[in-house]
Amino acid sequence: IIETPDHDRSLARQEPEEILLALAAWQERYRRLGQDPGIAHTQIFKNHGVVAGASLEHPHSQLIATPLVPAAVRSRLESTRAYHRERGRCYYCEALAAEEREADRVVYADGALLAFCPFASRFPLEVWLVPRRHAASFAEADRGELRSLAGALKAVARRLLEGMRDPPFNLMLHSLPYRETGYRDSFHWHLELAPRLTVLAGFELGAGMFINPTPPEMAAEFYRA
Amino acid sequence: IIETPDHDRSLARQEPEEILLALAAWQERYRRLGQDPGIAHTQIFKNHGVVAGASLEHPHSQLIATPLVPAAVRSRLESTRAYHRERGRCYYCEALAAEEREADRVVYADGALLAFCPFASRFPLEVWLVPRRHAASFAEADRGELRSLAGALKAVARRLLEGMRDPPFNLMLHSLPYRETGYRDSFHWHLELAPRLTVLAGFELGAGMFINPTPPEMAAEFYRA
Repeated sequence: IIETPDHDRSLARQEPEEILLALAAWQERYRRLGQDPGIAHTQIFKNHGVVAGASLEHPHSQLIATPLVPAAVRSRLESTRAYHRERGRCYYCEALAAEEREADRVVYADGALLAFCPFASRFPLEVWLVPRRHAASFAEADRGELRSLAGALKAVARRLLEGMRDPPFNLMLHSLPYRETGYRDSFHWHLELAPRLTVLAGFELGAGMFINPTPPEMAAEFYRA
Repeated sequence: IIETPDHDRSLARQEPEEILLALAAWQERYRRLGQDPGIAHTQIFKNHGVVAGASLEHPHSQLIATPLVPAAVRSRLESTRAYHRERGRCYYCEALAAEEREADRVVYADGALLAFCPFASRFPLEVWLVPRRHAASFAEADRGELRSLAGALKAVARRLLEGMRDPPFNLMLHSLPYRETGYRDSFHWHLELAPRLTVLAGFELGAGMFINPTPPEMAAEFYRA
């Protein structure tokens, strides 16, 4: 998904209106692919910078549609459903409320969305962008939510560009796979942004645990500065 | 774990006798840490090259002991136990026998161990080194198995150095966590070596699926050449 005709205008330099157009294109493709019964899941993502896997320089996002629900996606659906069964509330709704209450990990807030550095951040300066309204699928996002998302993404990318000299990052959409109706109450679509300032090495690949030297409170302070 | 007094002698240039000493040190520390009731699991790994996360140049391996069993380790224990319940055999024993029978993914074989590029390799040139004798924990490896492992590691590292200009790689030990006796029949200790020739990007981080452009049969042919 080509985000702009301007080769040199990365996310941080794009106008929110332009980012909104790209997000609307994400959603249009996301919805359209869901009509194909052979497609179980669409992963939308953006790789910014060579270290984050960008093989093309021109600002773009990507999507990969798969005939199956990836095991890591299934595992997230299952663990958040287990949480919902135990607590009677969506994990993401609860996290959003708790982060807003505690405030020190909040990065950006408006009427439609909260962006925060999650309590157990895997990456230094990791940010989650979570819509306030509970909805399992990105297909359900309304124009106002996409507009908020565009503004938040611009603000976060700009701080990374100006305050951290434009580090590589990955941006991942998390959305309920198509036709997985059993998770509608427990899953909640959102975006995760992971700057790639550390290396995933033998411990991460072997044990699946992440070493992150930056406390999320410090990360949020950086974004708010 | 410092592998050699010689700053410039990486794994590929070390003698098998020297590698054996390092593996014996791995095992000694692995066993010793298991005596501490506060330690549930020890992850041993090696990062070779900056891209693979090596922050020190001098040839070394590392271990991190945790008070819990990491979720990714638990998930591997559970899925291989489910396999064992369904098929009545250890997944790794079956994979080893199947790989030896099919032969085209085999990299190295001797009386104690088989090294092969797994059927569903996540990384280009990924190699698994699996002892023939079923044992769940690395603590149970005998001297002959460590000696075979040293020879196989030397051969693999040397091919990477000579045939691929010394790419970065991670080497991970997979072993039954301490006191997890319920998985003794279904888990099987082994090593996984992952060259880092591709980048883990948004698709890998978001969906947990790996894009690998190199068929394992081609990878094994490279190692056997």
